[in-house]
Amino acid sequence: MKIHGRHYRTIFPAEDGEGVSIIDQTKLPFDFALERLATLDDAAVAIRDMKVRGAPLIGATAAYGVALAMMRDASDAALAEAVRVLGATRPTAVNLHWALARVERRLAALAPNQRIRAAWTEAEAICDEDVEQNHAIGTHGARLLAEIHARTKKPVNVLTHCNAGWLATVDWGTAMAPIYQAHDAGVPVHVWVDETRPRNQGAALTAYELGAHGVPHTVIVDNAGGHLMQHGRVDICFVGSDRTTAAGDVANKIGTYLKALAAKDNGVPFYVTLPVTTIDWTLGDGVAEIPIEERSAREVTHLTGEDESGAIHTVRVVAPGSEAGNPAFDVTPARLVTGLITERGVCAASREGLAGLYPDYAKTAAE
Amino acid sequence: MKIHGRHYRTIFPAEDGEGVSIIDQTKLPFDFALERLATLDDAAVAIRDMKVRGAPLIGATAAYGVALAMMRDASDAALAEAVRVLGATRPTAVNLHWALARVERRLAALAPNQRIRAAWTEAEAICDEDVEQNHAIGTHGARLLAEIHARTKKPVNVLTHCNAGWLATVDWGTAMAPIYQAHDAGVPVHVWVDETRPRNQGAALTAYELGAHGVPHTVIVDNAGGHLMQHGRVDICFVGSDRTTAAGDVANKIGTYLKALAAKDNGVPFYVTLPVTTIDWTLGDGVAEIPIEERSAREVTHLTGEDESGAIHTVRVVAPGSEAGNPAFDVTPARLVTGLITERGVCAASREGLAGLYPDYAKTAAE
Repeated sequence: MKIHGRHYRTIFPAEDGEGVSIIDQTKLPFDFALERLATLDDAAVAIRDMKVRGAPLIGATAAYGVALAMMRDASDAALAEAVRVLGATRPTAVNLHWALARVERRLAALAPNQRIRAAWTEAEAICDEDVEQNHAIGTHGARLLAEIHARTKKPVNVLTHCNAGWLATVDWGTAMAPIYQAHDAGVPVHVWVDETRPRNQGAALTAYELGAHGVPHTVIVDNAGGHLMQHGRVDICFVGSDRTTAAGDVANKIGTYLKALAAKDNGVPFYVTLPVTTIDWTLGDGVAEIPIEERSAREVTHLTGEDESGAIHTVRVVAPGSEAGNPAFDVTPARLVTGLITERGVCAASREGLAGLYPDYAKTAAE
Repeated sequence: MKIHGRHYRTIFPAEDGEGVSIIDQTKLPFDFALERLATLDDAAVAIRDMKVRGAPLIGATAAYGVALAMMRDASDAALAEAVRVLGATRPTAVNLHWALARVERRLAALAPNQRIRAAWTEAEAICDEDVEQNHAIGTHGARLLAEIHARTKKPVNVLTHCNAGWLATVDWGTAMAPIYQAHDAGVPVHVWVDETRPRNQGAALTAYELGAHGVPHTVIVDNAGGHLMQHGRVDICFVGSDRTTAAGDVANKIGTYLKALAAKDNGVPFYVTLPVTTIDWTLGDGVAEIPIEERSAREVTHLTGEDESGAIHTVRVVAPGSEAGNPAFDVTPARLVTGLITERGVCAASREGLAGLYPDYAKTAAE
């Protein structure tokens, strides 16, 4: 994906090989700023403060965080500490723990003096695999958009929630990958972008991405999608997943469940796009079993934006004195999901569907 | 309802008898400011710019707007013009047209020199009836809250969307009236207040009202209600209505439909509170027949709030260059509504239910 005419990944090793560059996403859409992560703490802060966000990118950042830690101290104790610190940053994202476990397993088998190089290599491999997976998701999903266009001969209206785009991954995105591929292939696509309160990742990031790539889109408040579906103005929904159970339940940004209900009520196909790394094969009932992160009330009570002079202000929008609650994710039961789009193809949101695409993983998990 | 220890209605004749006082609700929750309406245009602007909002209060303001017009010119032509100008301000609110038709009918039967006094009297009667109706709605609804508390022995968690409170009516509110009455009667109540994007009437106005009255409440983003219902944290939903069909479909603030879907999916009772004046007896299928107002995109792209120094800023929160859409209402089909709470009692959201409570109106409409 290109920004200002130059191709970027969202995370990449610095040229001196001693740090990692990220895009500070808290400054978007008003300022495109790269930030250098030099230490374990830099990586942990970047994840916790959501300078990087999106399940795949969180995983990649955590992997680089271990590499940064190893450069200071490659002992067993330092490895365990790095995994502990990074693992505590965001409780819901399963990729975080997947990436950390992968790097830890690789490094634990090596002598400390071999760990620095191996950590960098493993983090880069995680990034490259993410890019490949997302490209494959895009190819499978773009086929669905092309089919709708072939039937209707009209621009395809896709609704999406939050940012499951390029900025949430290393490149391409998950829910956005089909849109970019269809658009690039000449299929006319228009995207309804849910604002996605409280952090406005849709209004700020998804809209930014789509604008930068030239994809027609309209930002709407999170309340509007049901009305648009009632009136036939949404052809299909694509969202991402922060954690998917073996039975196909999906934890994703708060509000996803409401859109899935509306899609079901109006016969609009509702697809969840995800790489295998978001699947937690140990979980069945997502509503009962997936812990939901409660984030700071300030994300609800305060908003940041740009005034007409270009100055950035943070303002309170909730009545002074009133408290706020902020559950960050919700769980969409599999019964509301038309299908899961993964790097291996499209399957039903069910234990059978996932086991069909992933007999290797499902078998291991059952053992 | 009291603000700063003093009882207010949201609209009342000025002491000199030559104007009308309103609370400029666009300045809440940060500034409580009264504004004087002296002319027809003042009244039209107040409605169109949402200095006054909420179906019952819009109707009352329109009635006073006719009175203000008559003070300048009480001719037939001026009466017709006043009704036309005020009727064009907000397309969805049925109370607006109801109030205008009522005042016009009363005045048209009189000689011009009798019209000024009659217009004021009629506007005051509309206000007094609104207060009485809302009090009765509160009594019927509070009974439901007391029943839940008697069963659970816990604080009753009510979810509400937008502002159907004191500030949306002349006094008491519709959806909030049961909450105030239950709270005042000693039933412990906690309110989940939907922020209600794009204009944040929940975060700004409902939270302000509840805080001023001392009712425990928590502001949440519009995305959060489904998750709370999945986890048993909502006992009942109360919302208002801008327009109700004879079959029980409800047009209300955008996003109401999504909450109704979630309530249905989780077995949470979903009640709509409304005075008879919001019922449009000529309509059946709300989704197909109720016109939905599309408001300015700027309501989505920009937000106003207060910074830490107390300065008010309006900031853009959508990526520069991206467009926004802003449908202001949606329609909740009757099948998702547990019951309608009106000044006459509680009925099913159906043609039979409404005809049972209002045989007089239903019969006239059928003729």
